[in-house]
Amino acid sequence: MSILVVGSVAFDTIATPSGRVTDILGGAATYFSLAASYFTEVRVVAVVGADFTSEHEAVLKNRKVDTRGIERTQGKTFRWGGQYLDNLNEAKTDFTELNVFEKFQPRIPKEYADSQFLFLANIHPSLQSAVRREMNGVRLTGGDTMNFWIQGTPKELAETLKLVNVLLINDTETKMLAGEKNLLRAAKKVIAMGPSALVVKHGEYGATIFFREGAFGLGAHPFRAPALPIDEVKDPTGAGDSFAGGFMGYIASQGEINREVLKRALFYGGVMGSFAVERFGTERLQNLTREEIDARFQIFRELTHLE
Amino acid sequence: MSILVVGSVAFDTIATPSGRVTDILGGAATYFSLAASYFTEVRVVAVVGADFTSEHEAVLKNRKVDTRGIERTQGKTFRWGGQYLDNLNEAKTDFTELNVFEKFQPRIPKEYADSQFLFLANIHPSLQSAVRREMNGVRLTGGDTMNFWIQGTPKELAETLKLVNVLLINDTETKMLAGEKNLLRAAKKVIAMGPSALVVKHGEYGATIFFREGAFGLGAHPFRAPALPIDEVKDPTGAGDSFAGGFMGYIASQGEINREVLKRALFYGGVMGSFAVERFGTERLQNLTREEIDARFQIFRELTHLE
Repeated sequence: MSILVVGSVAFDTIATPSGRVTDILGGAATYFSLAASYFTEVRVVAVVGADFTSEHEAVLKNRKVDTRGIERTQGKTFRWGGQYLDNLNEAKTDFTELNVFEKFQPRIPKEYADSQFLFLANIHPSLQSAVRREMNGVRLTGGDTMNFWIQGTPKELAETLKLVNVLLINDTETKMLAGEKNLLRAAKKVIAMGPSALVVKHGEYGATIFFREGAFGLGAHPFRAPALPIDEVKDPTGAGDSFAGGFMGYIASQGEINREVLKRALFYGGVMGSFAVERFGTERLQNLTREEIDARFQIFRELTHLE
Repeated sequence: MSILVVGSVAFDTIATPSGRVTDILGGAATYFSLAASYFTEVRVVAVVGADFTSEHEAVLKNRKVDTRGIERTQGKTFRWGGQYLDNLNEAKTDFTELNVFEKFQPRIPKEYADSQFLFLANIHPSLQSAVRREMNGVRLTGGDTMNFWIQGTPKELAETLKLVNVLLINDTETKMLAGEKNLLRAAKKVIAMGPSALVVKHGEYGATIFFREGAFGLGAHPFRAPALPIDEVKDPTGAGDSFAGGFMGYIASQGEINREVLKRALFYGGVMGSFAVERFGTERLQNLTREEIDARFQIFRELTHLE
């Protein structure tokens, strides 16, 4: 079933202990789309400038991602520059040039109106809410946010959280959003704000999904997927969005939404995140096969499976 | 089968966001013994001062721990004071009074000579090596160490590592010992130093066991056990030693040492660590039942188990 993602397309300048790249294709919507494209049909709503070429677009089209919702405007595409030093889990931002992204008003092509799944990548919560209201026929909405909105636009974010079924954020964001340092208590508080499920991404330690009691016909027991220890993390950029793409893409590929589907989705999220960090930018996500993905899923499963 | 632990018995003064306690029974050998006592026969070698009373000893004896190897000397028992502030994974030490522990020379009672398993808790690596050489008939030796020895006595520690089959340390210690920031590469370097297996404890994220290729008839694939998100961590003191006690105790309770046993042992380690932190000091470890332990083992298993 088709999934619509609304978010950023960007050009990233990244330095890590493994090297340095300039103005490579990135952005949450890009990573999400590529990761989800191995599971289901993906549609993108984003905005780019005149510097976004047909070669950039081909990266998405080659994975059969529907790019009709990528609006082209005067000006330059969103640019982000950052570096990862000792701690590969945390980027130090060098610069952020919003450019055309500053006035982004998501416009959903009418061909996208029948999308059954929706992912609201990390943009202003008011835009997330507007998109969600327009797409009021979707079966499941996933969403992301960040410290900037948690601290800067808490009221707008509170509205968005009431419209999102599954929120995907990291440990620090969860604790900040809840104003609570214990993860389990923080997760309960976040779920009380609206989402039926909360996926907390732990970086190299995997992810945990917490459920609202009774949501999806489920009990409140959390579930945790591990992450594979990786030999070399070349570039952590996009790992979280690739996780979200694998998670939402797998759910959208299944007929129903139940606990087992959500558990496997959490593993597939980890799998796609682990591929993403093996190369700079989107390189590794461009040329995977479903066989490679399923082989790594089995490794993840074995990693933590008791007979 | 019986397990011998050599390490510290201490009186701890601890402050956490949940409260404060003064001079309560602690020490690595204490936590280890109590945790392991639910699985197998445990024998302790340690040193205490005149302030160690029969009431303190009863905590161990009530769990049928053999205390004949606890040497009583003139002076005061080892004292440690520390606090946990925002980050419950990391203690800030307020004071360390080695007292009788400063001149600790482990003496192994002849009744302990037939112990089949050995755990060298965190003491000077030269003492660890001496004990291991004396107990040269054991089937499996586990060991712990810390940044103080990694940085202060690297040559002595290198000797110890050649005598230890399974080393149990945390992420930071692993990376420090290897001089390598990537966990997987660091684990490989540590295993090249001697141990057949390395257990890296991730605090609230569980633990990973890495194997030397071919050790225990195993391939080199790592295995990871998750940890349960806990509502309230009252006191993290002793979590790592309780983990080691559950891990080694379970192994000692089994007839053979193979991959499945080591995997389950990793889960039991996490289970005992999770109980330990629910109360201050050793309180929770004093009155468990094997049924409670196995019930939590099932929860841990379900936490990460795909159908």
